[in-house]
Amino acid sequence: MSHLFKNVTLIFLCILLYSVSCKESPTKNAIQVDNIEELNDAIKNANPGDNIVLANGVWSDVEIKFRGQGTQQNPIVLKAETNGKVSIEGKSFLKFGGQFLVVEGLHFKNGYSPSGSVVDFKISDDEIANNCKVTNCVIEDFNKPKRDNSDLWVQFWGRHNELSNCYIAGKTNRGPTVRVSIAGIESINNYHQIINNHFGPRPVKGGPSGETIQLGDSYTSMSPSHTYVANNLFEECNGEVEVISSKTNFNVFKNNVFYKSEGSLVTRHGNYATIDGNYFIGDGVNENYGGIRIINTGHWVINNYFFNLKGKSFRSPLAVMNGIPKSPLNRYNQVTDVLVAYNTYVNCSSPWQFGVGTNIAQADVLPKSEIRSARAIRTTVANNVIYNEKGLESIIVENDKADGVTFKSNVINNQGIAFKDFDKGIVEASLELRKLSDNVYIPVGIPEGFEAYNGFDFNTIEVDLLGVSRKDDKSIGAITGKNVSNPNILDKSKYGTTWFSNEVEEKEPNTILVAINDNLQSKIDEAEDGDIIILESGKHFIKESLIINKTLTIKSEDKTKMVLFYSGTAKTPLFSLQPYGKLTVNNLNLKGNASNFAFASLKENMSNHFGLSVTNSEISDFGYVLKAYKESFAERITFENTSISNCENGIELSEETNDKGDYNTEYLTVSNCVFNNVKENVIDYYRGGYDESTIGGNLLVSNSTFTNCGAKEKNKMLLNHRGIVNVNITKNTFINNPVQFVSILWGAKNNIESENSLTNSGKIKTEENLKLKLMY
Amino acid sequence: MSHLFKNVTLIFLCILLYSVSCKESPTKNAIQVDNIEELNDAIKNANPGDNIVLANGVWSDVEIKFRGQGTQQNPIVLKAETNGKVSIEGKSFLKFGGQFLVVEGLHFKNGYSPSGSVVDFKISDDEIANNCKVTNCVIEDFNKPKRDNSDLWVQFWGRHNELSNCYIAGKTNRGPTVRVSIAGIESINNYHQIINNHFGPRPVKGGPSGETIQLGDSYTSMSPSHTYVANNLFEECNGEVEVISSKTNFNVFKNNVFYKSEGSLVTRHGNYATIDGNYFIGDGVNENYGGIRIINTGHWVINNYFFNLKGKSFRSPLAVMNGIPKSPLNRYNQVTDVLVAYNTYVNCSSPWQFGVGTNIAQADVLPKSEIRSARAIRTTVANNVIYNEKGLESIIVENDKADGVTFKSNVINNQGIAFKDFDKGIVEASLELRKLSDNVYIPVGIPEGFEAYNGFDFNTIEVDLLGVSRKDDKSIGAITGKNVSNPNILDKSKYGTTWFSNEVEEKEPNTILVAINDNLQSKIDEAEDGDIIILESGKHFIKESLIINKTLTIKSEDKTKMVLFYSGTAKTPLFSLQPYGKLTVNNLNLKGNASNFAFASLKENMSNHFGLSVTNSEISDFGYVLKAYKESFAERITFENTSISNCENGIELSEETNDKGDYNTEYLTVSNCVFNNVKENVIDYYRGGYDESTIGGNLLVSNSTFTNCGAKEKNKMLLNHRGIVNVNITKNTFINNPVQFVSILWGAKNNIESENSLTNSGKIKTEENLKLKLMY
Repeated sequence: MSHLFKNVTLIFLCILLYSVSCKESPTKNAIQVDNIEELNDAIKNANPGDNIVLANGVWSDVEIKFRGQGTQQNPIVLKAETNGKVSIEGKSFLKFGGQFLVVEGLHFKNGYSPSGSVVDFKISDDEIANNCKVTNCVIEDFNKPKRDNSDLWVQFWGRHNELSNCYIAGKTNRGPTVRVSIAGIESINNYHQIINNHFGPRPVKGGPSGETIQLGDSYTSMSPSHTYVANNLFEECNGEVEVISSKTNFNVFKNNVFYKSEGSLVTRHGNYATIDGNYFIGDGVNENYGGIRIINTGHWVINNYFFNLKGKSFRSPLAVMNGIPKSPLNRYNQVTDVLVAYNTYVNCSSPWQFGVGTNIAQADVLPKSEIRSARAIRTTVANNVIYNEKGLESIIVENDKADGVTFKSNVINNQGIAFKDFDKGIVEASLELRKLSDNVYIPVGIPEGFEAYNGFDFNTIEVDLLGVSRKDDKSIGAITGKNVSNPNILDKSKYGTTWFSNEVEEKEPNTILVAINDNLQSKIDEAEDGDIIILESGKHFIKESLIINKTLTIKSEDKTKMVLFYSGTAKTPLFSLQPYGKLTVNNLNLKGNASNFAFASLKENMSNHFGLSVTNSEISDFGYVLKAYKESFAERITFENTSISNCENGIELSEETNDKGDYNTEYLTVSNCVFNNVKENVIDYYRGGYDESTIGGNLLVSNSTFTNCGAKEKNKMLLNHRGIVNVNITKNTFINNPVQFVSILWGAKNNIESENSLTNSGKIKTEENLKLKLMY
Repeated sequence: MSHLFKNVTLIFLCILLYSVSCKESPTKNAIQVDNIEELNDAIKNANPGDNIVLANGVWSDVEIKFRGQGTQQNPIVLKAETNGKVSIEGKSFLKFGGQFLVVEGLHFKNGYSPSGSVVDFKISDDEIANNCKVTNCVIEDFNKPKRDNSDLWVQFWGRHNELSNCYIAGKTNRGPTVRVSIAGIESINNYHQIINNHFGPRPVKGGPSGETIQLGDSYTSMSPSHTYVANNLFEECNGEVEVISSKTNFNVFKNNVFYKSEGSLVTRHGNYATIDGNYFIGDGVNENYGGIRIINTGHWVINNYFFNLKGKSFRSPLAVMNGIPKSPLNRYNQVTDVLVAYNTYVNCSSPWQFGVGTNIAQADVLPKSEIRSARAIRTTVANNVIYNEKGLESIIVENDKADGVTFKSNVINNQGIAFKDFDKGIVEASLELRKLSDNVYIPVGIPEGFEAYNGFDFNTIEVDLLGVSRKDDKSIGAITGKNVSNPNILDKSKYGTTWFSNEVEEKEPNTILVAINDNLQSKIDEAEDGDIIILESGKHFIKESLIINKTLTIKSEDKTKMVLFYSGTAKTPLFSLQPYGKLTVNNLNLKGNASNFAFASLKENMSNHFGLSVTNSEISDFGYVLKAYKESFAERITFENTSISNCENGIELSEETNDKGDYNTEYLTVSNCVFNNVKENVIDYYRGGYDESTIGGNLLVSNSTFTNCGAKEKNKMLLNHRGIVNVNITKNTFINNPVQFVSILWGAKNNIESENSLTNSGKIKTEENLKLKLMY
């Protein structure tokens, strides 16, 4: 080749490369903005290809309306100067209107949206976003101050929008974290993508409307959505029983990881969801981690992997519900035409339940339009693999008959325990586990010549959970076993942002000694999250409420040698439990003035949860031991080895009386305690509203003694827990309590009592069906 | 070019042609069969490309199960030796199982299916048809003998099946003529084609379940169907209020012609129907011809043409219904996200009605789950054209407010009559009509510069009703006006078979004289359809029922000079009105023996309708004047200028007491008659069941006199018409009838009375809301 020719070639190549690179990344016009006015100007004047760069720092009270017309090749980008160094705080939001707009690198924290959503893909009905994207951002604890004030953190409208590589965690107020709204033809067939995100912990909300993702609602449940939810990590998404609530048609859930999330992926309304290749990972203990709950028609549940899940009923790995015949739009349609195939269940307590939610027995107290009596029909369960380290007596729990379900070619290792084989649709084999990682094991050893079932359209199930082709492989279960390596599903670098991690380094708690004359509040303020405050022996006098807004332990070495006297005014608490205030009290002797309180939440603005654990303590002479106000919530409240005496009121969590299913604590535990002369509200814990899908709270009263309590109880009941779903009253002694009932248990729910001794204290009664207000 | 080259070219061409023709029509293996055994054998042994040829003649009692595996290129064909010369009669059916099977040229008549359908695209759940076709066939009067015995004439299952170029008419028994069933995933996304058919007259059924096409049912209304119904002629499809009942999703109705059909295309359940480019043609008189009735979400009604329609309310050209909030599955969902654009309405009495079916006023008698109070929302009506020869006071009838509807850029010629313009969404212009054919006129003269509304996705409306591109044409209405010629929509050669026509040549009726001693039954048997029998003066004695099974007139020249005495046994009728028996009686004097009947239907097996018109006659001394038995039906029963006296019972049509919405005649007319001493059931006409969508029957009682009637009426009511929707009692005289009520009218429906004179005859009362049994 001649030099000339070479050179010409080179030049040509250069031109070619230049033109190619030109096409892919044109010279961007970067516009740095330092405040909202500059930002608004920049947005107003933006052209396709512009980069609007937000200066690092705190942007407070910014209402960003990102309007613009980018192009596919040249979107308009609004980004942080440095990813993660731009925080959006105070009363702020971000709304999109237009197309091909991208937002990157922002950190929403220390604030909340003054509107109905934090990120909204719509400015108005005439300014709806299409082809827009939020990526590499964090939304953290961006809660409205009141739990009942509903909002969404990300609300989708329009078509082809994307939420990707974000970290989103900590929502406590009412409303799903993310919602795809599809009311209006502009938002149907949307093909939105929710991908590669890390949904971090969403604490238990204590009532409904705490989903992490909700796709549509019942009013739009007839519409085609085609939303794609893939490759996300859901970690401790515990807001309510539904982590994902799919309420539209043709949604796809693929390769997501549900890790220690106290809820399920639920096809609540709408039809034809594809749930393909997801991981549901439990810890072998917690019964609240769910799987997939099925309602409606035409869903495909394929290639999913379930590990170490102990959930039952609504929270079973596979919970197929009964429907209401001719159901109203917002209730439960019958399950029809569902396929459950090629899934693997390892060490799950109750892998498959059918007829979940049947309530035929409640026909007396519920209207006909609430009776779930329609069993699943035209449903196929085939080619699944179950491995049980400990054999189960029922592979399938039939809450109602599974007679509309066809079982084919499912294989189980049940350790030789006999089970119903559903016309030989479930066969035993001596499978063994092969480890891929701590949470992923493949059952291997399907017998030679075992024939997989070839159902209608099974040929469209082309790959397994790991993406390996099924074409020439007739194996069953989620993983064919070929080309297998550790899928690293909990490697958090695969999800969320490039710059934020929710891993917290363990730190040793500091111990802070408080002498008699020290200012205790100052010491509390000095303490860091997790620290321990030790009160010296002697009499501590407190005149004003102590503000607790972090995780803290306050204790003494010997409660018999100390007293904490509280002389604050009536109805003020010794310990004011404020947002984030999680207090452990140990070995303290607390005394009030008969009208003030030992513990109380704020009356309002409980934008984050509190918590309380009292052990080995003595509490006396208070107006209230604990008063939880409306819209406050604690995941756990525990009293152990503690004596409570001479108080006007005991433990009261009963202000959620609007009967919307809300309550004030998930777990109220009273154990080894002594109650003496508590006149009213000894224990008062309330949840109202007929709602089959909020399945809390939890009351345990055990090994405790109640003497001379309840004298002023107007309803003549010692332990009030109306509407609480799980109640266990066991091994207690009740002496000389002037009440008619110690408790009335709700028979239809999980309310039980055992080994209680009642002397001159009325009785314990069980009422099978409680009449509650219908919520829907 | 050299000769050689030419020849080579020629040879090459020949080979090419041969191979092409090979591909398109391979040598078919023709197998002639003469009986069902040979047919079954041939089916059993058929290979792709085989033609199974049915010998000409009558095939009686044949149950054809057409199983096979054809290919797209080489289907297996089952065909008549000569199209139309093979008739399938008796108890017969045709079922498909397999793929690429074609049936051609059969004539189903003189029989009925012993199973649930005549043609079925499924043999069993394991043998479902795909890519199969019925074409160039006729199904005519293939009715089960009893009206309540339900069946379907064509039932679709599977996918990609086709009903094309068939003529189908005359169904009288319960059940849609054609149904697409989509229960089960094998039948969803079916893309069936129902194309180029001629749906001939389906007479009024007298109750529900008389649709011509039903796509799915409420139980499968959440499923995607994608059925394509195109280029069909619906002629006098009067079975019930729904000619087509769309109950699944994504169905397409394109370029169909609805001609004098007493019903509507209704989006009864399911969503996202496309109703594009259809013609709805009325006669300017009949108020029963409907248009499009809208329920549910997301339908597009575009490019349709409505002419000379006088229907109102449910039967309006566009009837948008109110829904039931959170409707049960089988009732009425709210209308949302509907588009009505680019349609043309010429000379329609009530082109657009909203809030149709609102029944808020009936809240007292109906359960909450029946109250249609949810108005249409997110609905757009744009770019439509209305031309009214005679201006209307209301362009839009708001049965309930149309406040959720946006009107944009609609143009009307209302002849200067003022109307509500809905925020200027409807504007007046002096349009003129341009004639394309007798039934198709284009309103022209949209003002220069008129701006069409450009709504969401309007760019996808690419062509007009005639297929002309809208790309460079901003005109509104169904027809752009370019490249326009007569669309010949009523040219019947464009629809149905190649060999069958339903055009009947008019013939002059024969007149047959019957002398006193002639055998009247023999004369009746000799008569042809439409003939006139004249009875000579004198006394005619009849001992046995006269069988009437054709259209016939029996009259005399002077009723004062003749009598027809009937001496038949008790409860037998003088005239036995049998299937097809449509009798006109004129100028006769009929006398019974007090226990026998003047007219009666058969007690059972009324496989086709009867009819009765009595004028200028005298009827006396019968047990019943008319007794219509259960499951019999007459479109019209008329008594005019006739005296009825000394009868135990009068006119009774009241056996449909199972309250399923059925009744025994569509129109019962009593006009200028005299009733004297009729003791019971003077007029007894019943329809039961709460059903908002059967909107018959019709009772007119006018200018008549009732004297000394109703003495034995147990319910003390003279005129019984419970449940009949349209009742008009006018200008009658009631004297000395020992009853409590002459009539109780149903106020909420179309029951009215006027100018009646009551003397010693009780009274007429109106009951606003009748309590009826719920049908659903």
